[in-house]
Amino acid sequence: MKQYCFGIDLGGTTVKLGIFTAQGELLQKWEIPTRAENAGEYILPDIAASIREVLQNNGISPEQVLGAGLGVPGAVQHDRIVAPCVNLNGWGGDVAGRLESLVGFPVKAVNDANAAALGELWQGSGKGYENVVFVTLGTGVGGGIIVGGKLLRGAHGAGGEIGHVKVTEDETVACGCGKHGCLEQYASATGVVRTAKRILSESDRPSTLRSCAEITAKAVFDEAKSGDALANEVLDFFGKKLGYGLSIISCVCDPDIFVIGGGVSKAGRIILDRIEESFRKNAFPACEGTRFALASLGNDAGIYGCARLMLD
Amino acid sequence: MKQYCFGIDLGGTTVKLGIFTAQGELLQKWEIPTRAENAGEYILPDIAASIREVLQNNGISPEQVLGAGLGVPGAVQHDRIVAPCVNLNGWGGDVAGRLESLVGFPVKAVNDANAAALGELWQGSGKGYENVVFVTLGTGVGGGIIVGGKLLRGAHGAGGEIGHVKVTEDETVACGCGKHGCLEQYASATGVVRTAKRILSESDRPSTLRSCAEITAKAVFDEAKSGDALANEVLDFFGKKLGYGLSIISCVCDPDIFVIGGGVSKAGRIILDRIEESFRKNAFPACEGTRFALASLGNDAGIYGCARLMLD
Repeated sequence: MKQYCFGIDLGGTTVKLGIFTAQGELLQKWEIPTRAENAGEYILPDIAASIREVLQNNGISPEQVLGAGLGVPGAVQHDRIVAPCVNLNGWGGDVAGRLESLVGFPVKAVNDANAAALGELWQGSGKGYENVVFVTLGTGVGGGIIVGGKLLRGAHGAGGEIGHVKVTEDETVACGCGKHGCLEQYASATGVVRTAKRILSESDRPSTLRSCAEITAKAVFDEAKSGDALANEVLDFFGKKLGYGLSIISCVCDPDIFVIGGGVSKAGRIILDRIEESFRKNAFPACEGTRFALASLGNDAGIYGCARLMLD
Repeated sequence: MKQYCFGIDLGGTTVKLGIFTAQGELLQKWEIPTRAENAGEYILPDIAASIREVLQNNGISPEQVLGAGLGVPGAVQHDRIVAPCVNLNGWGGDVAGRLESLVGFPVKAVNDANAAALGELWQGSGKGYENVVFVTLGTGVGGGIIVGGKLLRGAHGAGGEIGHVKVTEDETVACGCGKHGCLEQYASATGVVRTAKRILSESDRPSTLRSCAEITAKAVFDEAKSGDALANEVLDFFGKKLGYGLSIISCVCDPDIFVIGGGVSKAGRIILDRIEESFRKNAFPACEGTRFALASLGNDAGIYGCARLMLD
C-alpha cells in the first residue's frame, strides 16, 4: 500500500499545499485563499475540505496518509500549540488537534521559517549537511536551525528566532518585538528601505534612488548593481550587519552552512558576497570557513519541510 | 557484572579523574599533575598509568569498564581529534585513539566546558531540563549547550563558544581569538579587571578599590558587596554585557535554563541579579521567563560530564 503525506504552508493571504510520497516525491501542489476573518475560524475547515477533495480525486484513503505538517506564521510549542498569530487576527491554540479531528490522520504544527529550514535541508541547498542555519529575508527576518539533522525548537518555541539577535547596542528605534537593535531592523526588506531613507536624508549626494517612485529593497539592490554609489552604501551596511549577526550565531550553534532565502535573497550573488565578507571578518576563527548558499526551493521550501516533519 | 566509567578532566596544571558506576555514582576522585613538557608527550601515559592503578586497587578488570571521557582545554572534532592546545604546548591530535590503545577500552574526547555543561545537566543545576546553556566565567568565558538532552558540538567543534559572541560593535582592543568585541572581553575575570582599571583611570573619584594591593575580579565583587559605588559600576557593566550576550543566545537556541559556573560565579547572587536584569531587558519576549541558576558541581562538573559521555 503506497503511503503519502501532506505539507501545508499557512500564510496571511494564501495557504500552499502539497501531497508527497513517503519517498519525498512532490505529486501535486496547489493553493487556496486564507480566510482570516472571525479570528480565523474558517482556516482549518477550508484546509480539511481541500485535502479531502485531493484524496478523493486521487483515490487515496485517509488510512494511506502518514500525516500532515502545518507551517504557521508564529511560535509553536510541542508540535501542536500555536501562540496567537498577529497577521491571522489572533488565530492559534491547539491547531494540530483541531485539524486532526477534521482530517482523521496525525498533524504536527511547526513555525513556517523552521519548516522552510527543514525543506531546504531535505531537498534544497542544505541537502547532505547535518547542521544548517536557514535565514529568510522578507518583510521581517526569520530563521530555522538544524542541529544533527533535527530542528532546534527551543524551550519556548523561540529556537532559530535569529531576526532578534542583537547587532546594535545603541539603537533608539524599537523592533516589532519591542526590543532594540535586532538583526531584523537592518537585514529585512523593511530594514533596507529604512537604511536607504536614512542615508538619502543625511546629504544631498546624487543617487539614482532619488528618482525612484518608491524606494524598495529590490530598487536599492537593482541600483547598486547598476553602479549607484549611494545604493552600494546601503547594500554594504545591510551585508555588514547581517554578516556580523551570522558570525554571532556561528559561535552558538556552529553550522556547516548558512542557507539564505526569502524575497530579499533574490538579489543573488551581490548580497551573498557582502554577507560573507562581513561574516569572515567577525567570525570565531574555527568557523571562518563556514559555507554560504542561496536557498533553492523558493516558495516551496515550506511545503517540503512540513511534509518532511511527518517522516521522522 | 558491575560496570564502570571514568571521567578525566585535563587542565593546564592538574588532571582531575573520577571513577563512576554506570548508575552515575562517583566512587572515587583524585588528581595527578599535568606534565605538559615535550609537547605533552607524558600526558596520556600518566593518565593511563593512574587508571590502571585504580583498577588494580579496586579489583576491576578493563572488561568491566564502559569507557572514559576525556575533557580537554580546546576544540574537539568527531569525539576524537583535538586541535593543538595553546596551554599544553601544542598537544593534540587523535588523543582518543592514543588513550584507547593505552587503556584497552573506548575513549571519547570532549571540550572541557562542554563536559562541564553535560555534568551540570546530569547531576547539577541543569538536572531535569532538556535544553541548557552552561556558561563558565573564569580567566576566559567558555560554554556548553545542551539541546534536547544532547551536547551541541557544531560543524567545526565551535558549538557553545559563547565567549566569542559579539556584544560590542566598536571595540578597538582585540580578543584572544583575534576578533573584536567578544563577550569574553567583558565577562571574564580578566575582563572585569580591565573594566575596573578603565573606570578607575577615567576620574579621581574615591573608591576602596584604589587601596587594593592588586585589583582582581574577586576584589571588585567584594568591594561592590561592601557598598563601594565605583565597584558597583564595574559590576553593573559586567552584568549588562553578560545579560545582553545571553539574550542573544536565547534567540538562537532558546534554553530552559542558563547555568552560570566558573571562578567568577563564586560571587553568587550579586552577579546573577545583574545578569538577569540585563537579560530580561534585552530578551526576545517569548524567552523573558528563561531560568537562571548558579552551577552546583564546582570543579567536579568536568569529571561528571566526561563520565556521562560514555553512558549515551
